[in-house]
Amino acid sequence: MTRSRSLLLPLWLSLLTVAGCFGLQNKSPHLSTEQSSDAHDQITQISVINSLMLGQYDGTVAFETFLKAGNFGLGTLDRLDGELIVLDGKGYQAKGDGSVTLVSRDNRIPFAVITPFETDGEFPCPAADSLHALEDMLDRAIEHPNNFVAVRVEAKLASITIRSVQGQTRPYRPLSETVKSQSVWTHNNLSGTFVGIRSPAWVGGLTVPGYHWHFLSSDKAIGGHVLACDIRTGDVRYDICGEWNILLEQSEEFNRTAVGNDLRDEVRKVESLREE
Amino acid sequence: MTRSRSLLLPLWLSLLTVAGCFGLQNKSPHLSTEQSSDAHDQITQISVINSLMLGQYDGTVAFETFLKAGNFGLGTLDRLDGELIVLDGKGYQAKGDGSVTLVSRDNRIPFAVITPFETDGEFPCPAADSLHALEDMLDRAIEHPNNFVAVRVEAKLASITIRSVQGQTRPYRPLSETVKSQSVWTHNNLSGTFVGIRSPAWVGGLTVPGYHWHFLSSDKAIGGHVLACDIRTGDVRYDICGEWNILLEQSEEFNRTAVGNDLRDEVRKVESLREE
Repeated sequence: MTRSRSLLLPLWLSLLTVAGCFGLQNKSPHLSTEQSSDAHDQITQISVINSLMLGQYDGTVAFETFLKAGNFGLGTLDRLDGELIVLDGKGYQAKGDGSVTLVSRDNRIPFAVITPFETDGEFPCPAADSLHALEDMLDRAIEHPNNFVAVRVEAKLASITIRSVQGQTRPYRPLSETVKSQSVWTHNNLSGTFVGIRSPAWVGGLTVPGYHWHFLSSDKAIGGHVLACDIRTGDVRYDICGEWNILLEQSEEFNRTAVGNDLRDEVRKVESLREE
Repeated sequence: MTRSRSLLLPLWLSLLTVAGCFGLQNKSPHLSTEQSSDAHDQITQISVINSLMLGQYDGTVAFETFLKAGNFGLGTLDRLDGELIVLDGKGYQAKGDGSVTLVSRDNRIPFAVITPFETDGEFPCPAADSLHALEDMLDRAIEHPNNFVAVRVEAKLASITIRSVQGQTRPYRPLSETVKSQSVWTHNNLSGTFVGIRSPAWVGGLTVPGYHWHFLSSDKAIGGHVLACDIRTGDVRYDICGEWNILLEQSEEFNRTAVGNDLRDEVRKVESLREE
């Protein structure tokens, strides 16, 4: 991934100036228990990505509980039944049949990340004819490679390619198998919101390294996990998050999950899988 | 390490029965924002271990702020000036000269973990003539290999070998270099408390995998990072922690830190380094 490459090389030392982007902020970490104005800077995550990769699709936290930790995020739903988009405090379920519905309060979430989005910086989004182009531009503008960043892009698009997945039944197969039957759609000439979380390259098997993008159209009728895009213009807002909170279940099944396996290549494939 | 080995093999499926140990608990994750009685199950961590390994010794969070997140934990202090032990809500600084003092409220902590300890289980500690023997016994008794566990052992000891380190001055060297000048002491026939945090094997470069033990004698006069021990008898209490909260600074120096480097061998050496 572009992001990983730019982290391996110190390219971010030669930062390009992007109109409106903010300089480096020096901040000590805070504790959300402090109730300070920085308390919003916490990313909360249910489970770890390797657990989902290995087929742990049963949800563990009710959506209404999850929403207490933020208003902006992404993930999946109970039994892997679609792509979850949390935008402005509402949950949208982009299903494998292409429909988008509001998430029910009691849907249990197996894997997702959420944060209370408050803008740390914003700037116009230039045209970007691919996800790589978008992410390269954002890396230069946002910096902080060792922190988490929530990124919201309101975009007018020439096209977007998104995917979703069908709910699964037990016995669950690994995610790398399951996504082979994903549904993929390309839509042209539309507007909508990219809901993105950028995680540091060093997160290993705990979450998705680099950018993870879901999309919801302005009319809330189209949504999913983004595989490709061609952005004409847009606006970027971002929120740098210095606190990462991981919720782990305590169950025999989780105990048996080989969370420590190196699944980074599989994660990359699952996140970027597209019809060639 | 023993713990890593037992996780690579499914040895924990053949759990030995230990008197007084509790069976597996099935719990969904919770959110500390829920203010439930489970809120104590959060481990809060300042920074990531790889950052400390690479010489980031400047503290970032004031000790009095850190204490808001718990009453039981361990770590180090500003400029690596000794070993930090948090016990019953008090902070003890075991210095490189062998003395133990209370931690000042404004000492800034570069790396540490803390939790509000509440007992999930307890049992008598059998004799254990080494750290490995202690950890093997605890692994069998406590289970939950994919969760964090705070472990408190009140022990009567035939002997204990502990170390501490001197405060450093800039330019800081990597921790693997710094600990070569550690002070090591062996004490015989004493009693005291082991303050331990067990982290899952999959934590990578984020924290110390397996057991991490600091020790404080009953008279609070002796303390440090445990390198070896010979326990005659004792009592174990543990607290399973299903929420892991990592606080990251936002600074140019942290941005430049190669947190993603694989330093697992170095971490193991630093944690277990002793005079052979």
